Amino acid sequence: MIADSIIHALRNALGKGNFPLHEPYFAGNEQRYVQECIASTYVSSVGAYVERFEKELAAYTGARRAVAVVNGTAALQVALQLAGVHANDEVIVPALTFVATANAVQYLGAVPHFADSEEATLGLDPLALREWLKIIAERAGDAYRNRQTGRRLRALVPMHTFGHPCDLEGLLAVSHDYRLALVEDAAESLGSRYQGQHTGTFGLLGTLSFNGNKIITTGGGGAILTNDERLADHAKHLTTTAKLPHRWDYVHDEVGYNFRMPNLNAALGCAQLEQLPEFLASKRRLFKRYQEALADIDEVRLMEEPSGCKSNYWLQTLVLEESAVEQRVEILKATNDVDLTTRSAWRLMHQLAPYEDCPRAPLQVAESLRSRIINIPSNLSN
Amino acid sequence: MIADSIIHALRNALGKGNFPLHEPYFAGNEQRYVQECIASTYVSSVGAYVERFEKELAAYTGARRAVAVVNGTAALQVALQLAGVHANDEVIVPALTFVATANAVQYLGAVPHFADSEEATLGLDPLALREWLKIIAERAGDAYRNRQTGRRLRALVPMHTFGHPCDLEGLLAVSHDYRLALVEDAAESLGSRYQGQHTGTFGLLGTLSFNGNKIITTGGGGAILTNDERLADHAKHLTTTAKLPHRWDYVHDEVGYNFRMPNLNAALGCAQLEQLPEFLASKRRLFKRYQEALADIDEVRLMEEPSGCKSNYWLQTLVLEESAVEQRVEILKATNDVDLTTRSAWRLMHQLAPYEDCPRAPLQVAESLRSRIINIPSNLSN
Repeated sequence: MIADSIIHALRNALGKGNFPLHEPYFAGNEQRYVQECIASTYVSSVGAYVERFEKELAAYTGARRAVAVVNGTAALQVALQLAGVHANDEVIVPALTFVATANAVQYLGAVPHFADSEEATLGLDPLALREWLKIIAERAGDAYRNRQTGRRLRALVPMHTFGHPCDLEGLLAVSHDYRLALVEDAAESLGSRYQGQHTGTFGLLGTLSFNGNKIITTGGGGAILTNDERLADHAKHLTTTAKLPHRWDYVHDEVGYNFRMPNLNAALGCAQLEQLPEFLASKRRLFKRYQEALADIDEVRLMEEPSGCKSNYWLQTLVLEESAVEQRVEILKATNDVDLTTRSAWRLMHQLAPYEDCPRAPLQVAESLRSRIINIPSNLSN
Repeated sequence: MIADSIIHALRNALGKGNFPLHEPYFAGNEQRYVQECIASTYVSSVGAYVERFEKELAAYTGARRAVAVVNGTAALQVALQLAGVHANDEVIVPALTFVATANAVQYLGAVPHFADSEEATLGLDPLALREWLKIIAERAGDAYRNRQTGRRLRALVPMHTFGHPCDLEGLLAVSHDYRLALVEDAAESLGSRYQGQHTGTFGLLGTLSFNGNKIITTGGGGAILTNDERLADHAKHLTTTAKLPHRWDYVHDEVGYNFRMPNLNAALGCAQLEQLPEFLASKRRLFKRYQEALADIDEVRLMEEPSGCKSNYWLQTLVLEESAVEQRVEILKATNDVDLTTRSAWRLMHQLAPYEDCPRAPLQVAESLRSRIINIPSNLSN
């Protein structure tokens, strides 16, 4: 039974006890900053922690600007809107992703178009995507449209799965050749770098998430990254109800959103961000322990950072060999039964009821990965 | 100069110093609950404070259920969706409201249809609305449509302006006669009652806001109220990404939203809600002081709770007599110049660029009110 071998290996790496998939870890200034924030009464839409968090995120990621918002989904929705996505456009997203990637497209009235992933990164495969676009994309003026649906192909959204950067160089080339705005969904990859540069800073815009299950958390929160000052200013305006500054008057010049991050949440974020280097080291130590413990199990591959990349190792990931696919559910069940929390990869987007009729490329690799991926306990405190 | 008389009266009521429009007031268990929340590590999408806040909100308002969400705009968007609002429907909202009321309609692809307010409540005028619907509504099967646009008239959204309940009895009758779902935007009226019953509990659904400028705050937050268990369950499902419960699998059965209120924010909310009775008493004491101080200025009326209602007196409001309209800007400027923060009513919805082409009823009263309303300092600490 592979399940038994895996449980044995996980216990070797982790020891006795309950091991969740990932929990927040508060060992820094969280209590202090949040107390200061409440004492100041500035817990809501205005406050010094929001500005500080934005500045520190920009400094950390190397993006020229960061705009803090209420969550990663909202960040992606607004980033796509700023990238020019309109109703009835198509936006290429991985089939293997959390549902928020597709939802953000749908909220704009646009249509997600699902593309395949590659084994090495778990992210979008630029070669397969190029082959697919050769078949379905036709030139229409300055742009390309999907000849099968007639819709404009507007944007490309790579997602860095479980923190592993995908092939940004290849995807940037595809986005250039097919006039697609590249917007990175870096919700899972704070701290991950591709050829030394932080994920989320390669496209026109990128987005982060600070949900409770992410490497750092603000309770709920997200951010938009961009090197374009004009887009950053517009992101701030759009996410703060598009109100024009005035001492007493309330004028809004476009349909904005109530998407600002509350100062209370930003206070938590500032404390968390200070600890990110240690969190990254902790995640990497756990990876090494798993690497050692799992070395002798031929039927599983422990997901390793792609070549040229530094992953944040947010969620440690087993990829079963084809020969072990039948045992996936048994492994999930057996591990969860002994308080080693594991989970499956997400159901693929085109297999979800709301997205089953959306356009899609051949998805063999994503389908295979979906049947082979198991996330294993990845707590920071390990 | 009326401005001088008003400044004199405000100083009589308030004393010396800076007086903001409204600031949060933290005199209870805020620090304790938030510290407990961080210590528990459950700061995000799961946690005991969210459930407690929901239960306590339901108990306080008398709604069967309350669902805590990320802000009042999100609450209204989801409430409207649950009330059956679809793309290209029309939803009747006041022209005199904060822009979020119209935005929530627009996010669903529906069209806001602006209606007039009445002097006594500052909210939708049921008599004027009925007259208008006699002209523009035509029967189409079980429903009514706008004969001028051909669109289905789907819902009616009263908003309780500055905490003063509008004429719910009249509006419920109109909504019944014209088959409109009634969804109350009670963002400003937590603690306000109409004939003894809490605002937000009269329609199919109602919504609250806990933004930093509201009578209680969660940093950012909102809630959906309803007496319908099925709608409440659906609201919870939709606002938590529509994920089906499963130990390790990720299946979403409809397009959901990442709209849950983080536990960190709910912790603050639980502490704030405990103090709501005292906050209401404080707001009412301030009203009485203003009533006395302003009694001799003939050109202004201090907004008083409508007959049969208990207002939360969230924002104290002056309504200028017609004779004093010309002095509005001077009053706003002069008061703000001496650190008495005042503000204008919102620009009317049909006067905002994104909504200028939307259908609308005659709006004489709203236009008049917009030119006569001045909110004056309303702090809880007064």
